[in-house]
Amino acid sequence: MLGVCYYPEHWPEAWWAKDARRMRDMGISFVRIGEFAWSRLEPKRGEFDFAWLDRAMDTLGAAGLKVVLGTPTATPPKWLMDEYPEIAPVDQHGRVRGFGSRRHYTFSSEVWWRESARIVEIIAKRYGEHPALDGWQTDNEYGCHDTTQSWGPEDLKAFRRWLRMRYQSTEQLNEAWGNVFWSMEVNSFEDVVLPNLTVTETNPAARLDFWRFQSQQVAAYDKMQCEIIRKHSPGRWITHNFMGFVNDFDHWKVGENLDLASWDSYPIGFVEKFPFSQEERNRWAETSHPDIAPFHHDLYRGVGRGRFWIMEQQPGPVNWAPWNPVPKPGMVRLWSWEALAHGAEVVSYFRWRQAPFAQEQMHAGLNLPGSDELSVGGREAEIVGRELIDTGALPATEQAPVAIVYDYETYWATVIQPQGRDFQYHDLAFRWYEAVRKLGLNVDFAPPGAALDGYKLVLVPSLMMVADAALHAFNAAEGIVLYGPRSGSRTRQFAIPENLPPGPLAKLTGARITQVSSLRPGLDDAVSGTVCGAAIRWREYLETDGEVLATFANGDPALTAKDGHHYLACWPDQALLRQTLTHLAAKAGLETVALPDHIRLRRRGGVTFAFNYGTEVWAIPAGANVILGETDVKPQAVTAWKE
Amino acid sequence: MLGVCYYPEHWPEAWWAKDARRMRDMGISFVRIGEFAWSRLEPKRGEFDFAWLDRAMDTLGAAGLKVVLGTPTATPPKWLMDEYPEIAPVDQHGRVRGFGSRRHYTFSSEVWWRESARIVEIIAKRYGEHPALDGWQTDNEYGCHDTTQSWGPEDLKAFRRWLRMRYQSTEQLNEAWGNVFWSMEVNSFEDVVLPNLTVTETNPAARLDFWRFQSQQVAAYDKMQCEIIRKHSPGRWITHNFMGFVNDFDHWKVGENLDLASWDSYPIGFVEKFPFSQEERNRWAETSHPDIAPFHHDLYRGVGRGRFWIMEQQPGPVNWAPWNPVPKPGMVRLWSWEALAHGAEVVSYFRWRQAPFAQEQMHAGLNLPGSDELSVGGREAEIVGRELIDTGALPATEQAPVAIVYDYETYWATVIQPQGRDFQYHDLAFRWYEAVRKLGLNVDFAPPGAALDGYKLVLVPSLMMVADAALHAFNAAEGIVLYGPRSGSRTRQFAIPENLPPGPLAKLTGARITQVSSLRPGLDDAVSGTVCGAAIRWREYLETDGEVLATFANGDPALTAKDGHHYLACWPDQALLRQTLTHLAAKAGLETVALPDHIRLRRRGGVTFAFNYGTEVWAIPAGANVILGETDVKPQAVTAWKE
Amino acid sequence: MLGVCYYPEHWPEAWWAKDARRMRDMGISFVRIGEFAWSRLEPKRGEFDFAWLDRAMDTLGAAGLKVVLGTPTATPPKWLMDEYPEIAPVDQHGRVRGFGSRRHYTFSSEVWWRESARIVEIIAKRYGEHPALDGWQTDNEYGCHDTTQSWGPEDLKAFRRWLRMRYQSTEQLNEAWGNVFWSMEVNSFEDVVLPNLTVTETNPAARLDFWRFQSQQVAAYDKMQCEIIRKHSPGRWITHNFMGFVNDFDHWKVGENLDLASWDSYPIGFVEKFPFSQEERNRWAETSHPDIAPFHHDLYRGVGRGRFWIMEQQPGPVNWAPWNPVPKPGMVRLWSWEALAHGAEVVSYFRWRQAPFAQEQMHAGLNLPGSDELSVGGREAEIVGRELIDTGALPATEQAPVAIVYDYETYWATVIQPQGRDFQYHDLAFRWYEAVRKLGLNVDFAPPGAALDGYKLVLVPSLMMVADAALHAFNAAEGIVLYGPRSGSRTRQFAIPENLPPGPLAKLTGARITQVSSLRPGLDDAVSGTVCGAAIRWREYLETDGEVLATFANGDPALTAKDGHHYLACWPDQALLRQTLTHLAAKAGLETVALPDHIRLRRRGGVTFAFNYGTEVWAIPAGANVILGETDVKPQAVTAWKE
Repeated sequence: MLGVCYYPEHWPEAWWAKDARRMRDMGISFVRIGEFAWSRLEPKRGEFDFAWLDRAMDTLGAAGLKVVLGTPTATPPKWLMDEYPEIAPVDQHGRVRGFGSRRHYTFSSEVWWRESARIVEIIAKRYGEHPALDGWQTDNEYGCHDTTQSWGPEDLKAFRRWLRMRYQSTEQLNEAWGNVFWSMEVNSFEDVVLPNLTVTETNPAARLDFWRFQSQQVAAYDKMQCEIIRKHSPGRWITHNFMGFVNDFDHWKVGENLDLASWDSYPIGFVEKFPFSQEERNRWAETSHPDIAPFHHDLYRGVGRGRFWIMEQQPGPVNWAPWNPVPKPGMVRLWSWEALAHGAEVVSYFRWRQAPFAQEQMHAGLNLPGSDELSVGGREAEIVGRELIDTGALPATEQAPVAIVYDYETYWATVIQPQGRDFQYHDLAFRWYEAVRKLGLNVDFAPPGAALDGYKLVLVPSLMMVADAALHAFNAAEGIVLYGPRSGSRTRQFAIPENLPPGPLAKLTGARITQVSSLRPGLDDAVSGTVCGAAIRWREYLETDGEVLATFANGDPALTAKDGHHYLACWPDQALLRQTLTHLAAKAGLETVALPDHIRLRRRGGVTFAFNYGTEVWAIPAGANVILGETDVKPQAVTAWKE
Repeated sequence: MLGVCYYPEHWPEAWWAKDARRMRDMGISFVRIGEFAWSRLEPKRGEFDFAWLDRAMDTLGAAGLKVVLGTPTATPPKWLMDEYPEIAPVDQHGRVRGFGSRRHYTFSSEVWWRESARIVEIIAKRYGEHPALDGWQTDNEYGCHDTTQSWGPEDLKAFRRWLRMRYQSTEQLNEAWGNVFWSMEVNSFEDVVLPNLTVTETNPAARLDFWRFQSQQVAAYDKMQCEIIRKHSPGRWITHNFMGFVNDFDHWKVGENLDLASWDSYPIGFVEKFPFSQEERNRWAETSHPDIAPFHHDLYRGVGRGRFWIMEQQPGPVNWAPWNPVPKPGMVRLWSWEALAHGAEVVSYFRWRQAPFAQEQMHAGLNLPGSDELSVGGREAEIVGRELIDTGALPATEQAPVAIVYDYETYWATVIQPQGRDFQYHDLAFRWYEAVRKLGLNVDFAPPGAALDGYKLVLVPSLMMVADAALHAFNAAEGIVLYGPRSGSRTRQFAIPENLPPGPLAKLTGARITQVSSLRPGLDDAVSGTVCGAAIRWREYLETDGEVLATFANGDPALTAKDGHHYLACWPDQALLRQTLTHLAAKAGLETVALPDHIRLRRRGGVTFAFNYGTEVWAIPAGANVILGETDVKPQAVTAWKE
Repeated sequence: MLGVCYYPEHWPEAWWAKDARRMRDMGISFVRIGEFAWSRLEPKRGEFDFAWLDRAMDTLGAAGLKVVLGTPTATPPKWLMDEYPEIAPVDQHGRVRGFGSRRHYTFSSEVWWRESARIVEIIAKRYGEHPALDGWQTDNEYGCHDTTQSWGPEDLKAFRRWLRMRYQSTEQLNEAWGNVFWSMEVNSFEDVVLPNLTVTETNPAARLDFWRFQSQQVAAYDKMQCEIIRKHSPGRWITHNFMGFVNDFDHWKVGENLDLASWDSYPIGFVEKFPFSQEERNRWAETSHPDIAPFHHDLYRGVGRGRFWIMEQQPGPVNWAPWNPVPKPGMVRLWSWEALAHGAEVVSYFRWRQAPFAQEQMHAGLNLPGSDELSVGGREAEIVGRELIDTGALPATEQAPVAIVYDYETYWATVIQPQGRDFQYHDLAFRWYEAVRKLGLNVDFAPPGAALDGYKLVLVPSLMMVADAALHAFNAAEGIVLYGPRSGSRTRQFAIPENLPPGPLAKLTGARITQVSSLRPGLDDAVSGTVCGAAIRWREYLETDGEVLATFANGDPALTAKDGHHYLACWPDQALLRQTLTHLAAKAGLETVALPDHIRLRRRGGVTFAFNYGTEVWAIPAGANVILGETDVKPQAVTAWKE
């Protein structure tokens, strides 16, 4: 199904009905509205204006559209910021981040919670049972623009409260953080300061706790909104639209509040944000990299416990990356089908019509700026609408053979303590995902601690803190498991485990890490054996009582195995990663196919999709029963067939 | 004529008469003094010491020198900053920019205006009719060191006042800025905040208005000084010394206050400031790029409505660029003649004698530090002095066949919203200028809205906001016109025009832009047809009812024509730019010559000058009547001949 | 002898005796303790807990270890920071640098001096005559983390006091700083502001005075601690552990307070901090560059007037560089022997056992994290311990034939006024050291003004301010002297000398510099004559009445000589530097050997050591009497022989 993001408040009311009709005509079923409209709903404290939104909801509903209503908390209005300046967040350098754009609040402000609850309740009450209303979106893109963390007095107050709950006594806090080091000991929780603006680096244990605290606040804040909505809007679902490549809070935890997950898919903009080489950026500039959107589809399908939407789909060039090229013809259609292939229930485009004014005026819409004329992306969306009718309902999404365990705490920990400047967890996880997808395999994402039943291959790119639940899940895993570097290298309190890394995984893997070496670009260490290639960026010194499958140049173990549990003691280059995953997939009994760089497959039930991100045609297997596209998958094209 | 900048307050009074005599002996006629001397003129509030300046003026006048007196407002003294701390500007991060260098004031401070008026009036009264006084310089290098904009409480107050005048009501302000977006609406002008220190980007319409406001303040402040001076100094002219590559305020507007323009020419220092490639920087490190100084000569001749000076000419290495090489022998002479060829009335060197102390001690002068011995540059200036006598008066400067429309608002708009990181207006304009100068053509600069009568070729590298006057001038243009990318792409209020770009130019050009693509370095789009090359950095998707002269790889129009009005829908690479301008110059009936990279020509009346910035000799046309230099123009040499 | 840094407060008391015994068993004689333990010694104001330190000292002493006790002033505890917030330093942008790491104090705070004196006195009294106590360390790594300079109100107050003492009157201050320039004159010492947060660059004379002031504070603060210690701890020596590559204060001056110098040797971490090319960084990533540690050994032997220790020797990978590779096998042993060859009395490893918690948990120790198992580095230290017994006492260190005059003020001056972005004094000095060491020569470092008797070759890479004492020493020098670029180019008050550079050196060298050119990367100027190569980065225009040994491309003098005093008028490339030093060494009658890049020699009395930092074997001269290692010096190996 298709959807679209719409801002009735941006357009003359006379246009609404026509807009709604044109949406329906091109196959759109859902419309998301309202998420930035606070200043129009409550122009001044306590003076509400709901009439326009009532009419907008009615008009959309009358056209047969189902409405997703956003709570407007991402944009507190000026009068509120003036009443309570303490709502504004503070950056890591101590500067207040003020009014004038969006997300100008800290999750630590109690006043902000109260005001958020107030506006959400008022809106939920008014529209909770509106006949056009299908579901809700809380806030907008938590964490976007670096807004998970704030470093002001409100944050310090809330952090101290959180620490008091967690540690009970300063003795325990001092012990947990290792505060004896550099005389950092505190005598009272009031002695704790925020881990910023110090002379040299701050205590990593303190930073990790601060990050956990802020992440938990996001989840709790979201839960507060959800609870209010549920009370007043029975039978409607709730989602949040996560932003891609934002790892600052634990998406698994927010997902627990929601009926389904959704995410905002800007495949081309992300090419500029991700740590790609310049060569990769140029190569994928106008199509996106073939794993960027799928990585998130699979991740948010997990976060939504099987259910997810694309809430905002890029329909043309955007405005916020350093460079913003026009996508190649066909890409908007390709991305739409790819989301559906990965199980998206709805692909909702951002936005109906390009705004001629304000910050996002260079962001394409389905219609040209201020007009009723479809853009290139709009015409492609129209095609998808027709194709969806032709192909009919797709089979249900099934469990994948491969699971990737994805962990936000490890991301935080590697930001706090990279040890090698280019050790970035999201990069590592992405490369593992890319490599396994190039083998033609479907992938699920799982949080650490989730049951791993039914997976033939479990990939753990890195899991620094291994909690009991995670250990238990690994113990119970039936498939082949591969752990990457730094796994189990820290206790919950950011200490090196007594038995050395991989700590809790020592028994399962047979490994013990005595030293680690971070390698500057240009340095590597050759690996050979059952699999070959090289370590780059990171290389561990490992002892094992298991089997050694490959060794570094000096004979030290690089890849080890013990009863199906494998440990890879480095950041692998492309060759080593491909060979390692190919070897383990074979061991797991999985059939793989070596895809070209620019082709990806995805199975949904009995239907297989092929996507072409490159410049050369790719032929699907002979004799397939094609239900979409052609047997020769042309550049920027998609083909689907039944087995 | 030659001039020099002199600081009597830096040297023992016993040296003054000798200095003056030596100036005269080497052919210097003008001396600029006084522009940083406030603390010597008024050491404490109300305690004045004019005796030394009286004697200095008398001494210089007695030697036959004409004095240019600078108002000392670029350096408010410490006691004044202590009395009124609000004079100090505030940077974009909220930090006060304090005493200790220069330009430490914000144009928004009312106290500062009062104090400026006070000191200017006192000085104008005392010296306004001094027999040695020839003219005035207001302040020094407005905008230098990023001082056009300030972000403090004084600025906010003044900005709100300006907005109230401009918009009358918050309804109009909200509408103009599109404040409905992200709930940015204000209920009162007191709700407006400065467009900085926000969570993510600020409203571009607000930023453009803030920039306009600050630019207008510069012009109004300058006008205030001019009016006071004119009252007390009848018959004397007024100028301001603009700094090269400062685009933060509208120089056309300040020019309107002045009798003549002047600018500070540091050809080598600018090589490091301009967005050249490293290769270009190395190539031109010791000569400067052959179009840097000429670009400014032609621009400020326009700003001065035909009259301009070089107020500060680099006479050797400077101190403020990342690297400061010694110019190649001959360059100081070459630059001096080049300014004269472009119509400069006076070339004034900065400075008479290198200062052995303080911030600019590594800045060369005509004399070695603290000495009476000419530097290399001093000896070259001496040669120019003799040559000026030999050549006699040069013919008057005539209107050029080519006009470039240069617009400061477009510069601001592309800084505010680059959309592609390397879309920089001054770079684009410079490259167009360079390309047309390589064809051997003289160029004038015109502000948007100026009459374009008599120009055979009008170049508009980009003009984002096309006001009625500009549209009228284009309509009335008699020559061939070429508009570059983004022209007409915004309304006065930074909105996309209803009819899409090029908005007001749609009818003239026949064009409509539906999409734009910004291209990262390494990406391009081939162009072929009447002209060939490639689009880099920026590529527009254009529809036209005119003629298509060249197309992009996919057949879309790249260069179009309609009744002499051409539109180039991209940032052209060097080949495309050269071919386009060659083609249009021919169409305009202009005779061109394909000059080597290192040679430039300039005609002044019937005299043609050739300048050699390279390493290979260039021979002038046979049979010319040489009045300066040799027929073989050697490296770093200049030749002039009559036709 | 060997030592180790130990933190009894980090480990259970039950471990102490065993730790001490294991130290002794592996050949360790000294243990440094206590330097970060303030919060354990005085958990709250006036509540002391010395019992644990008493027991620790006793335990260590009982095992035969000698204790070095550190004063704990690098880590003022939280309660003290809360009592006196003004202790915290302020960064150059005006932000307070707060509690949470270390070195969070400004030397300008009077309260801080009082509190430092209080805790030092208490500790000195208690332990000054403890039988296990051998000596003292003051504070820890002055200046580390950019802590020499602070920019807060306390600093301004103290700076004004210092200026009043130095200049007596504002007339003298204004004259000295050239404050007439840009109206920077002050009417009172209360008018002086800190040289930061200005609109453009600040007065270089003011910055140099501010730097001197802060440097003198470091020395005075250290002296205060030393005087207290000496009063209460008769017969014990005092040192400070300097940090490598910290040039922000004058180490010669602090050295005057001390009985011996010590420094913290992190050869691999420094590879990332020093301005090497990426190619050099990769080449030396896992061994360090062969001159980094020796440069400091020779420097601190000078600072300690012949006596120095390595107080902290890197025993494996560290945690604080952008990348932290594991050293190649053998390097910990090689570094240890190299320090001894250069005259170190003790090599003390940092640290006994890797800490599993807090900021330095990724810093290797002699034992694995939290364990009693030796690390790779620990095992190499153990070998050194055995070898030390085998080789017996080494002969005394003798005066070297070559002296390098090393000057901190020149470093500050080139930071304040680089004039060419890559003119960095410590880089220049390092390259000269490297070049002379590649000739197989021993080197001593001397402060400017020290007697240069007995040196056959004196190298002065640059000495911007030449004081009378330095001039006198050069006059009296018996050997060949070589001065590098910018020598004598400034007066004490940062002015260009009246007679132009090299100012006071004009007579000795016969040189006069009229212009300087800074050359961006890619530009050079060929040099030929007695020596050949090229000028890069910096090139001076020199006149001389001496002999011209080599000239630039245009014939200007590049290397000149007058009665043994040579002047090199550029930053030499590698070839020019090598040829120049080879030529001068020959002139000085020194026998040199052209060593490969990866081999270095060092003579200690009659014993010669060879160190191999590369990948190819190097054979020592035939017939040598080897006392350590093998005649074929393998990669990462050391060989010593008697002549």
